[in-house]
Amino acid sequence: MFTPASIIQKKRDGKELSSEEISYFIQGVTSGEVADYQASAFLMAVYFQKMTSRETVALTRAMLASGDHYNHAQIPGPKVDKHSTGGVGDKVSLILTPLAAACGLVVPMMAGRGLGHSGGTLDKLEAIPGFNVKLTGQEFQRHLKKTKCAIIGQTEKIVPADKKLYALRDVTSTVECIPLIVGSILSKKMAEGTEGLVLDVKVGNGAFMKTKAQAKQLAQNLVQVAKLLGLRCRAVLTNMDQPLGYAVGNAIELKESIEILRNLPPSPGLNSDDLKELTLDLCAHMLVLGRISKTHQAGYSLAQKKLTDGSAWRVFQEMVQNQGGNLENFTDPALIPLAPQVVELRAKKSGFITGIQTEMVGRVLIELGGGRKKASDEVHPGVGLVFHKKLGEKIKKGDLIITLYAQAQTECAELEKILFKSIEISQKKKNPPPLILESI
Amino acid sequence: MFTPASIIQKKRDGKELSSEEISYFIQGVTSGEVADYQASAFLMAVYFQKMTSRETVALTRAMLASGDHYNHAQIPGPKVDKHSTGGVGDKVSLILTPLAAACGLVVPMMAGRGLGHSGGTLDKLEAIPGFNVKLTGQEFQRHLKKTKCAIIGQTEKIVPADKKLYALRDVTSTVECIPLIVGSILSKKMAEGTEGLVLDVKVGNGAFMKTKAQAKQLAQNLVQVAKLLGLRCRAVLTNMDQPLGYAVGNAIELKESIEILRNLPPSPGLNSDDLKELTLDLCAHMLVLGRISKTHQAGYSLAQKKLTDGSAWRVFQEMVQNQGGNLENFTDPALIPLAPQVVELRAKKSGFITGIQTEMVGRVLIELGGGRKKASDEVHPGVGLVFHKKLGEKIKKGDLIITLYAQAQTECAELEKILFKSIEISQKKKNPPPLILESI
Repeated sequence: MFTPASIIQKKRDGKELSSEEISYFIQGVTSGEVADYQASAFLMAVYFQKMTSRETVALTRAMLASGDHYNHAQIPGPKVDKHSTGGVGDKVSLILTPLAAACGLVVPMMAGRGLGHSGGTLDKLEAIPGFNVKLTGQEFQRHLKKTKCAIIGQTEKIVPADKKLYALRDVTSTVECIPLIVGSILSKKMAEGTEGLVLDVKVGNGAFMKTKAQAKQLAQNLVQVAKLLGLRCRAVLTNMDQPLGYAVGNAIELKESIEILRNLPPSPGLNSDDLKELTLDLCAHMLVLGRISKTHQAGYSLAQKKLTDGSAWRVFQEMVQNQGGNLENFTDPALIPLAPQVVELRAKKSGFITGIQTEMVGRVLIELGGGRKKASDEVHPGVGLVFHKKLGEKIKKGDLIITLYAQAQTECAELEKILFKSIEISQKKKNPPPLILESI
Repeated sequence: MFTPASIIQKKRDGKELSSEEISYFIQGVTSGEVADYQASAFLMAVYFQKMTSRETVALTRAMLASGDHYNHAQIPGPKVDKHSTGGVGDKVSLILTPLAAACGLVVPMMAGRGLGHSGGTLDKLEAIPGFNVKLTGQEFQRHLKKTKCAIIGQTEKIVPADKKLYALRDVTSTVECIPLIVGSILSKKMAEGTEGLVLDVKVGNGAFMKTKAQAKQLAQNLVQVAKLLGLRCRAVLTNMDQPLGYAVGNAIELKESIEILRNLPPSPGLNSDDLKELTLDLCAHMLVLGRISKTHQAGYSLAQKKLTDGSAWRVFQEMVQNQGGNLENFTDPALIPLAPQVVELRAKKSGFITGIQTEMVGRVLIELGGGRKKASDEVHPGVGLVFHKKLGEKIKKGDLIITLYAQAQTECAELEKILFKSIEISQKKKNPPPLILESI
């Protein structure tokens, strides 16, 4: 017979666990028969000894089996979703979800909230008054059938083992562990009922994976395990050495996303090219996985067409309406409710932007109230930052680099200092890193 | 500021923790501010990353500071104690404690109960009707003043951090970890108020450390950390490839100990030479540490004298009387209350005894009821085993090898089989391993 301690010991000693042992342990974690202190010792043992692909498949299956999951067999069309490992200013899902649906995919997206320094799709959507991410299973499927996409949050009944393990990992320093990350991501994506999955694995100083080698290892593990689980899967390594697009913050990111969906140019001096480019690239991968497009190039062209002809914007509006949101204040960019204190950061010297400490930018947003320090914190949708310059751009002393939107004047002085330190200005131009590094 | 998670992470990443960080963490474990699941993740991180001597000193100090400790400054004489890492048939403390006191040392022994397959001194003493190991601090010190020795159990108030960590280690597979073992042993020995400590580090198939290399590493760590803590300390590596002496079981081990204390020869065919030899050797080390004897040889001679002239036996009787014990049934070996079912195991072939699976012998004692499977189990003092043969001895088919004392006939058949399997008989003589391997 298994005991929790014998399973911990086996993993501690670097041996491969059987599927039965992993299933027994995860069932016990979910039911409470395995104590939290045993679960955390297990997580730390996995941190050091890792897991084989076979073990990670068993872990993902056991986590999936801990709760309910959706089956969309009765909804016609290929179900394909995207998941990002998290970055700063990453609002791709807001544009990509309706765009992919407009191209003929069904996108049953179960998204997350801000985590650490990175933002969350649910928080961004909730900047729209009334937008409801807590749909019943019936509502979720009705919207998927009609509009081909919906974005919901994880409920208590979906992958409860992940909820428990994630909470433990967060307070026991076992977050940065590839098999645990893979199990957490894929169990939730399996539960939402998708058939295909494009993974945007971020790499850089604003990502959880700081080096390309780490990110590639994670991407390879994700793809390998996803395929063993029967998911069609593709991973793209993308750069996160600067915020994606120009906006960082919930309402302001929504504004930037809507500009792209509506084919509006951004305000003068602002640049969303990287955001648009990445969204189209990821959409092309989704269309290939969903067998709507034969090649990446064909997928890219289709996505471009559905973005330009307004189809994606129509789907977005319908999705927002389905989920109770009121877009009134977002159709005219000038009406978007941003926080009242506006501070402009101007260059103290001339030169080139050669570095942005992107994780620090994410932390500044949290300090402003745009993210959470603890799960119970309330998020202020209107706070945020606008980046007027991107990596590689030439600047003159006095040029506007960042606009800060804050709730109160008092908090700005300290954050200004941090932001000035986060921007590197050099005399010698450095080319910005490529946006899309590799696909796996 | 420290947080539990940041300290876990620092250790996880192989960095040296400061004394302040260790103290903060252990205080939190004791008070409950550090959750059990954080404590167990920390223990597993220590299992993999180990601790430096400086960290282990800080751990031991922090554990000591978690509760009360004794100070015997007002009791004249050098305070020196002995600790064994645990074996089978190891009743040395029963003889050594009064013997060392008879030689002029003060022995404030805080002993333990059976742990895993190894026996515990408290369980052996409690085979004496009325013997009380739960003394108040005042009683403990009164007996130490008058008789120069007393043997007590750990109370709730002594090193509570160890109680908590030990219970967690037991169920999270983090027992076999040198800095955690060192902290656990030394914090308790510091708390009992000893100034000097002789460590009997067991090595062999009946010990927790199966190889000499493991045992030596533990011994070196113990001595190094003890010295940094200001304890005079010496470790002796001793063999545990067979039970020590002839008896395994609580009352029967007491009988063997009293025979030695009273200078009685053991019953015909039984052999306590190794037990007596080890007791005298350890006593000699204690006397050198306590500066009563200048050399080990002088200490050995003094111990021999005090054993032979009946002084140790007088101190033993006084200690038992102090602690409420009634020796009536133990003064005549024939009266000792052993369990009613007696089974004799006789050799099935002639040859030499070349191996005894000693850990298995300890487990058979637990099956008989002489030890605990869980903390709440009651112990039967009368059950046990007598070994009529030791390693290296020549035997003829039909010779008596083991006598088993059990509560009921029913349990004996299975245990007989296990015991037969545990005894290796070969045609070729093999010299028994040396008893005392090395002193550190």
